[in-house]
Amino acid sequence: MSVQVDQAATAPRSRATWVVPFSEGRAKDKYLLGGKGANLCEMTYIGLPVPPGFIVTTDACRAYLREGQVPESLYEEVLAALAGVEEQMGLRLGDPDRPLLVSLRSGAPFSMPGMMDTVLNLGAMPDTVPGLIGLTGDAKHAWDSVRRFVEMFGRVVLGVAEEVYARLLDEAIAAAGVANERELTADQLEEVARGHIEATSAAGASIPDDPHEQLRLGVEAVFRSWNGSRARAYRKVEGIPDDLGTAVNVQVMVAGNLGDDSATGVAFTRDPATGEPTPYGDWLQGAQGEDVVAGIRHPDPLRTMHDAFPEAARELEEHLDTLERHYRDLCDIEFTIERGKLWMLQTRVGKRSATAALRMAVDMVDEGLIDEAEAVRRVRPEQLEALLHPRFAETPTRVPDDGAPQLLTTGLAASPGAAVGQITMTADDAVRRAAGGQDVVLVRPETSPDDLEGMVAAQGLLTSRGGLVSHAAVVARGFGIPAVCGAADLEIDLRGGTVTVDGTVLRDGDVISIDGSTGMVVAGPMELVPVDDDPRLERLLAWADEHRVLRVRANADTADDARRSRAAGAEGIGLCRTEHQFLGERLPLVQRVILSEEEQDEAEALVALEERQVQDFIELLEAMDGLPVVVRLLDPPLHEFLPDLDELLVADARGELDADGERLLAAAMRHREHDPMMGTRGIRLGVLRPALYRTQIRAVTTAAIERLRAGGDPRVEVMFPLISTEAELIWAVNLVRAEVEAVTAAADTDVRIGVATMVETPRAALRAGDLARHVDAFSFGTNDLTQMTFGLSRDDVAGRLMPRELELGLLPADPFRTIDPVVVGDLVRRATAAGRATKPDLEVGICGEHGGDPASIRLLHGYGLDYVSCSPARLPIARLVAAHAALEISGPADDA
Amino acid sequence: MSVQVDQAATAPRSRATWVVPFSEGRAKDKYLLGGKGANLCEMTYIGLPVPPGFIVTTDACRAYLREGQVPESLYEEVLAALAGVEEQMGLRLGDPDRPLLVSLRSGAPFSMPGMMDTVLNLGAMPDTVPGLIGLTGDAKHAWDSVRRFVEMFGRVVLGVAEEVYARLLDEAIAAAGVANERELTADQLEEVARGHIEATSAAGASIPDDPHEQLRLGVEAVFRSWNGSRARAYRKVEGIPDDLGTAVNVQVMVAGNLGDDSATGVAFTRDPATGEPTPYGDWLQGAQGEDVVAGIRHPDPLRTMHDAFPEAARELEEHLDTLERHYRDLCDIEFTIERGKLWMLQTRVGKRSATAALRMAVDMVDEGLIDEAEAVRRVRPEQLEALLHPRFAETPTRVPDDGAPQLLTTGLAASPGAAVGQITMTADDAVRRAAGGQDVVLVRPETSPDDLEGMVAAQGLLTSRGGLVSHAAVVARGFGIPAVCGAADLEIDLRGGTVTVDGTVLRDGDVISIDGSTGMVVAGPMELVPVDDDPRLERLLAWADEHRVLRVRANADTADDARRSRAAGAEGIGLCRTEHQFLGERLPLVQRVILSEEEQDEAEALVALEERQVQDFIELLEAMDGLPVVVRLLDPPLHEFLPDLDELLVADARGELDADGERLLAAAMRHREHDPMMGTRGIRLGVLRPALYRTQIRAVTTAAIERLRAGGDPRVEVMFPLISTEAELIWAVNLVRAEVEAVTAAADTDVRIGVATMVETPRAALRAGDLARHVDAFSFGTNDLTQMTFGLSRDDVAGRLMPRELELGLLPADPFRTIDPVVVGDLVRRATAAGRATKPDLEVGICGEHGGDPASIRLLHGYGLDYVSCSPARLPIARLVAAHAALEISGPADDA
Repeated sequence: MSVQVDQAATAPRSRATWVVPFSEGRAKDKYLLGGKGANLCEMTYIGLPVPPGFIVTTDACRAYLREGQVPESLYEEVLAALAGVEEQMGLRLGDPDRPLLVSLRSGAPFSMPGMMDTVLNLGAMPDTVPGLIGLTGDAKHAWDSVRRFVEMFGRVVLGVAEEVYARLLDEAIAAAGVANERELTADQLEEVARGHIEATSAAGASIPDDPHEQLRLGVEAVFRSWNGSRARAYRKVEGIPDDLGTAVNVQVMVAGNLGDDSATGVAFTRDPATGEPTPYGDWLQGAQGEDVVAGIRHPDPLRTMHDAFPEAARELEEHLDTLERHYRDLCDIEFTIERGKLWMLQTRVGKRSATAALRMAVDMVDEGLIDEAEAVRRVRPEQLEALLHPRFAETPTRVPDDGAPQLLTTGLAASPGAAVGQITMTADDAVRRAAGGQDVVLVRPETSPDDLEGMVAAQGLLTSRGGLVSHAAVVARGFGIPAVCGAADLEIDLRGGTVTVDGTVLRDGDVISIDGSTGMVVAGPMELVPVDDDPRLERLLAWADEHRVLRVRANADTADDARRSRAAGAEGIGLCRTEHQFLGERLPLVQRVILSEEEQDEAEALVALEERQVQDFIELLEAMDGLPVVVRLLDPPLHEFLPDLDELLVADARGELDADGERLLAAAMRHREHDPMMGTRGIRLGVLRPALYRTQIRAVTTAAIERLRAGGDPRVEVMFPLISTEAELIWAVNLVRAEVEAVTAAADTDVRIGVATMVETPRAALRAGDLARHVDAFSFGTNDLTQMTFGLSRDDVAGRLMPRELELGLLPADPFRTIDPVVVGDLVRRATAAGRATKPDLEVGICGEHGGDPASIRLLHGYGLDYVSCSPARLPIARLVAAHAALEISGPADDA
Repeated sequence: MSVQVDQAATAPRSRATWVVPFSEGRAKDKYLLGGKGANLCEMTYIGLPVPPGFIVTTDACRAYLREGQVPESLYEEVLAALAGVEEQMGLRLGDPDRPLLVSLRSGAPFSMPGMMDTVLNLGAMPDTVPGLIGLTGDAKHAWDSVRRFVEMFGRVVLGVAEEVYARLLDEAIAAAGVANERELTADQLEEVARGHIEATSAAGASIPDDPHEQLRLGVEAVFRSWNGSRARAYRKVEGIPDDLGTAVNVQVMVAGNLGDDSATGVAFTRDPATGEPTPYGDWLQGAQGEDVVAGIRHPDPLRTMHDAFPEAARELEEHLDTLERHYRDLCDIEFTIERGKLWMLQTRVGKRSATAALRMAVDMVDEGLIDEAEAVRRVRPEQLEALLHPRFAETPTRVPDDGAPQLLTTGLAASPGAAVGQITMTADDAVRRAAGGQDVVLVRPETSPDDLEGMVAAQGLLTSRGGLVSHAAVVARGFGIPAVCGAADLEIDLRGGTVTVDGTVLRDGDVISIDGSTGMVVAGPMELVPVDDDPRLERLLAWADEHRVLRVRANADTADDARRSRAAGAEGIGLCRTEHQFLGERLPLVQRVILSEEEQDEAEALVALEERQVQDFIELLEAMDGLPVVVRLLDPPLHEFLPDLDELLVADARGELDADGERLLAAAMRHREHDPMMGTRGIRLGVLRPALYRTQIRAVTTAAIERLRAGGDPRVEVMFPLISTEAELIWAVNLVRAEVEAVTAAADTDVRIGVATMVETPRAALRAGDLARHVDAFSFGTNDLTQMTFGLSRDDVAGRLMPRELELGLLPADPFRTIDPVVVGDLVRRATAAGRATKPDLEVGICGEHGGDPASIRLLHGYGLDYVSCSPARLPIARLVAAHAALEISGPADDA
C-alpha cells in the first residue's frame, strides 16, 4: 500500500516558506503545513474558534534535515508569529504575570498517529506558576503543567530516559498514599515538578531558562523525530515518502481540566459506525483530551452535553454542521471547553466503517453535498470488500451489556470476512473438530506450512504475531479464509490451552469471533450478517458504471453463472471454461475419448458429447443474449479427466483393479506429465486431438445458429489457450474457419463466430503484434503469464515459499494477487500496444484472477485494456475500482 | 537449413544482362550465370578445353517468370551468341551438311540436382542426319541423337507423356529381340525416331521445324521448370529463395560414345571419401555421361585410363591440377573424350566425406593452397559431428567384394553416428532383444509415440518415410540415437517381416548397418570406428581457436570431467552442477538433511556433507587451475533426492514399508509438486533451506583457500539458479558475502569468490539491467528460458507433441535444439545488452544445451556473448562453430 502523493504540490518552489500563522494558511496547503496545521488554518479561515497559533512548515523541516540546522531567518519569523499570538491573547511566553503556554505538535502531510514527538505546556516553569495561578486560580493545574512540561521536554528534547521521571512520580504517589497523580495536591505536584528539574540536570541535561530557546529546541526535536526509527518504519509500511518532512504546530494551550466549567471531547459529524446523519461523540467534564483518548475515565455520549453546557453544545453542533458543509465529508474533531468557552482543537476527514462509508456517500448525494462521482470516490474497495463478506451484525464494545460478546482487542485486518468458532490451538485439532462438524477459529502465535491443513479446515485464523505478509495472512488471503493477524495483545499459551487479553482468560474450545475486515477480536459468538443488501450499494455501483472506462465481464461457465453475473452487472462473459462441460455425468464419455487412442470409438463418444455441449451453449448464449461471450476451448491436460494416479497405483498394488481400472491406470500413466502446466494442454491438446476441438467449435456454432433462429442475438467468440507461436494461432483460426463453414453450410445459414487468443505465455506476449493480425481479441491469462514469467508455480509455492519470500522482501507483493507491474504488467502493457498497432480495433481484456484485484484493475485501466473479466463474486469490486481508476484515484483518498 | 545468399550479388542492377558467352563470364558471377555456367566460363577463362557455348542468364529467367514472356531483345542476343559458336565450330544449327548439336541445361545459383529440365541433342532432326553421319561416320549415333532429342523435346518442352515414347522404344526392343536400346541398329533407331515424331503429333503437339524456334521453346521450358513442383519443394527444404531463377547453358554437344576412341568420365581432384591427394574417378570407354551416372555399365577406375588414352589422361591430370590450384579446393568434374579429344564439360567444388573434408583442409594448408582460416571454414560442423561419432571404417559400395556388406540405399542423415544391429520391426521386439543383450536397429515405415521405448532401446533407427522433422528424426536427435530416415527405396513389410531394396530381401533378425551422418544403409555388419583420432583434427581446432571470439567452456561436474574438458580445449567450467555431489554414497546424508525438518539433525548431516564437498571442489579447482570455474548452487527440487514416490506408494499399499520407508514416503508426499520445474528449486531452495546453500558456499570458499595455500590459482564463481527478482539476487549475494567473510576470517586469509546469476526465467531476462549491478557474470540457462518463454515442458512434449508441431510447421524448429531466435534469442540479446549497459565488464555466457548447437552458437556469437559452455563431448563443435561465426560463415560454404 502506498499513499497518493501529489507530485505538483511537493515540487520544489522557488522560495521556501518557514512560518505560516493559522490565519494565513488553507487546507489545500497540507504538503507545506502538514495535515493538522492545514485544517487548523481552514477552521480559522471559516471563522471557527481555534486557539491562535502558527505553523513552522515542512519546508523548514526539510531544510533542517538537509543542513543539520534550522535556516537563519527561521527564528526571526517564529518570534514575529509568536508576537502576533501574544498580542492576540494578551499574554507573553515566559511572562511571570501573564504567561502564555503553547503546545508544539508535529503535523505531517499524511497522518502518522503517535509516531512523532510533541511538547505540551511550553512556557510553564516555576517562574511562571504565580502568573498561571493568577490567570486560572488553579495552583494544582499550574504545577501539574510545569511537571508535564519538564517531563516532556526532558524526554523528547533532551533525551532523558522516561524511567527517570516515572520513578519520581511513582514515589510521590506512593508517599502520598493516593491512587494516581490526579489525586496529588498542588504542593505534592510542585515537589514532583522541582524533582523533575533536578533529575534532568542530574541526567547531564538541562532545560534552558529562556522559553524562546525552549521553543527553538522543541521545534528541532520535533523535526528530528521525523527520522526516528518508529516513524521511518511506519512510513515504510504505509508507503509515505521519506522526503516529505513534518510541520510543527505551535498553538496556545487551552485547558479542559480547570473544573466543572471546563470539558473536553471528540466528535464526528455523523455516526462513523453506521453512517446515521447525526453528530456522534464522547465528552468528559473537567478533563484533558488525553483522558478521553486513554480511556481511563468513562466518557459520556455527546448528546448529554446539552445539560451541562447548553450554549457550548449548541455552538458545537453549529460548528459541526458548518464543518461538514465546508468539507462536504464526515469530519472528526477534538474540542475543549475552557471556563465555558468552546475551542476547536483539531479537525480532519473522519475514518468510517464500511457500512457508514456506503451510507454517507449515498446520503450526501441525496443531500446535495457531493455529486455522484464524489460518492463513488468515497467508498474504498476494501470497504466494499468488507460489505461483500460476512461481518458482525453489531459493533462489539469493550464494555458490553450483560452477556453480550466483549471486544477483546483489534489486530491487523489480514483477510476479509468475519468468522465464529471454537478456539482451536493446533492444526490437528482444527482438522478433527472441523471433520466433526464444528466451526473452529485456529488461534496460534503464528502459523507455519505444517499448519496448512488446519488453516484450510478453519472458519477463521487469529495470530498474535506477524504482519500482513506473514504466513498466516498470505495463506488466509490465498484461500479466502477470514483472518486477524498480529493481535499483539493476545497472550497465547499453547501448553496451557489459554488465550489471555488484558486479564480476560479464554480457553481452548471457548467460542471466539473475529472480523478480518476490521481486525476485531471478540469473546463469544457474534451474530453475523452474510452480505450487505443495502439498496444504496446498487445505486453507488450504478454511479460507478457511469464513470468507468474499463468494461467488466464475468468468468462464468454455466447459464446459472451467466444469469447471476448479468444481474451483478457483468457486460458479457470474458471467460467460459469449457472443461466444466466435461465433468459429472459426462466424465465417462470424456474418458472414452481419452482411452480411444487405442479404442477407435473416439468419434462416437465425441458425437454424444457434442449434443450435450450444444445444449450448454444455447442456454449460456440465451442468458447473455446481446452481450459478448468468450468460449475458451479445452485447456487442462487430459489426465485431469482421469482418476487420481496415486489411487490407481495403490489399488493396483492391492490387486483391486478390474480390467477397466487397468486401462485407466495405463492411460493415467501415459498421460502423466512432469510439469503439466507447461505440458500437453491448451492449444497443444487441439494439435494432438483436433477432433476434440472440432467438436467444441461445432457445438458453439450450432448453438449460435439455434439462438439466431430463436430470434436471439448471440455474440460469441472462440478463444485459444496457451498459444505461443503465430503458426499455432493460424492453425487454430483455420480450424475454426473450417468447422464454422461446414456447420453453417450444412445448416444453410450464416452466423458470425469471432476468434480470440489467450496471451498467457511470455512468448505470446512478446509477439503480440504478430498474433493480433489473426484474431478479433486478446485475453491476458495473467495467472499463467505470471507463473511462466517468474518460473513460479502458484500451487506449489503458495503454502511454503510465497510467505517466506514476502517475509524476506524478496517479492514486493504476491504476484498472483496483484500483477507484478515491473515485468508482467509491462508485458501486458506492451502486448496491448503492439496488438493495437497491428489491429486498431483489437479488443483487449484479461481473464486471470487479477481481474478482480483492485490494485491490478488500476494498472490494467492504465494499460488501456477494454475490459476485465473476473469471478461473479468480484464484479462489484471490479465495477467500483474501474470507476476509481477512471476518476484517477490510485489509493486511499480520505487520509488527510 | 538455409543456403547463404549474397544479398549484394542478387540486388537489382541498373541494366539486365540476357546472354553471356562462356568466354565472357567468370565464376564469381554465379547469381547471374548459375553455378554450372559460371564454372564453365571460369574453365574457359583459365584455358581449359570447354565445348563452346553461352548462357541465357537468370536475369532473363526472372524477366520471363515476371512477364510471362522472354524480353524482346533476348533472341537477337541468343542468335548472335549462337552465331559466334557456329563460327568457332564451323558448324550451323540445322545445317543439313554440317549440323551443330547443342544441349540446353539448367543452371541455378545453387545446385538443384535433377530438379529442373534439360534438352540434349538440339539440332538433331531427320534432316540433319546425313550431315551428322558425314561428320562422325556413325549412322547409329546420328539416329540415336534424333531419337533422344525428339523424346526429350516432346516430353520436356511440349509436355507429352513419357510413356508415349517409352512404349514405342520397348516395342522396338522387343521386336528386335535385343536386350536394350544400345543393341538396336541404325535402321531400327531411325524407325524409333520417326515413330517418336509421329507419336508427338498424335499427342496433339508438334516439334517446330526451325531449330531456332526449338531453341527458343527449349529455353522457355527450362525457365518454366524453375517453378515446377519438385523444384519448389526442393528449394523449400534447402532454404533456397524462390526469386533467384535459373540460367540456361547452351553448349555444343560432344559425344563420348562414337566408338573406342571416345570415352566419358567423372573425376575428383582428390579422393572425396578419404581425402587422399591423388585424382579419383571413374570412366567408361565409348559411352555417354549418363551411362556413368546411371550405373548401367560398370565404370573403370580413373588410373586405368592411361593405357587407352595416354595423351588425354595426362592432359586430364594437368587440368585437374590446374583446376585445384585455381579453385584452391577439391574439384569435381565431368569430361568427355570425343575421337581422342578431351573436353571438360563441368566442374564444381566437390562434395566430400567428413574424413576427407578434414584431411583436405589440413593438407591444403600444408601445401600452401589455402590459409588456416580457410581450412577452418572448409570443415562444416555436420562433418565434424560425423567425425565425433562412430562411423563406418570403410565406404560401402553397391557392388562389394565377395562377402563384404552391400550399400543398399541412402536415406536422410537424420541423427549422426553409425549403428549395427539386427533388423527389428516392432518396438516390443526391440525392447526384448535389447534386454537380451542384442544390438538392434529398429526398422519401421515411420515411428509413433508408442514406439518410444523401443526407439530408446535400439542402437539405431531406420525409416522409409518422413523427413528431418519426422517423429523418428526428432526423437532420435533428442536421445542421441543414430538414425537414417525417409529411405524411400526400402519396402518394409511388417507382416511378412521383410525389408526389400531393389530386389535384395532382408529379413527380421538379419544384421543391418546404418550411418546417420551420411544416410547410408548397408546390408550386413559394417566395421565401425568409434571416433576420429586423426591428429589433423587437433591442428584444425587449434587454428579455429585462433580465429574465434567466443570462448568455450565445459559443463563439468567432477575433476575427471574437468580434466577431460581441459584436454578437449575447454577454457574453464561454465557450469558445475553441484547436485551430482549429493548422489551415490552421500544420498543418505542428503536424505537426512531433507528429513531433518522434523529431526533437527540437519546441521550434523550438513557438516558431514560439507567435508566431502570441500574435497570435490579442491580436486575440481586443481584440474581447472588458472581457469574460471562457475559453481552453481543446488538447483533441483529436493524430491529428486528421495526415492520414487510411485514405488513408495506401491510398497506402502503392499505393507512393505518399514519405519524409515514410512518417513521417506511422508517426505516424498510433502515435497511432491505439481510443476516441479517452476516449484521449490533453484534459489528458492536456498530461501527455504539457507543452511544447505551456506554449506555449499563454505565448501567452495574452503576449497579455494586450500588451493591458494597449495600454490594454485583458483578462479571460482558461485552461481545462483532460477533468480527472478533483483531482491532474490541481493539476498543470495549477501549470503555469499557473509559466508565467504566468515570462512576467510576463520582461516585468516583472503580469497576472491565471484558471484554469477543464471538468467533463465523470462523475468530475469527482462530485468537483466538491474541484476547486473550485483554480480560479476550472467549465464543464460536457455533450456529453462525456452521452457518458460514458450510455456513448454521439454520432457513432456519431446515424444509426442514436438514431432507433431514440427510436422505441422507450428514451430519453425525444435527450440530445445536451436535457440528460438525470434523471442528467446532476442531475450538473450537484449539481456546481454542491458546487463553490459549497467556493468560494462559483465561476463556473459550460456550453459544451456544450446551452447553445443551450431546454429545457436552462431546466434550467440552475434549477440556478443563472451563464452558458451557445453558438454565436454560438444567442445570440438563449439570451437569450430565459434570460429566459423567469427569468420562470418553462417551456413554450408562449399555448395557452388
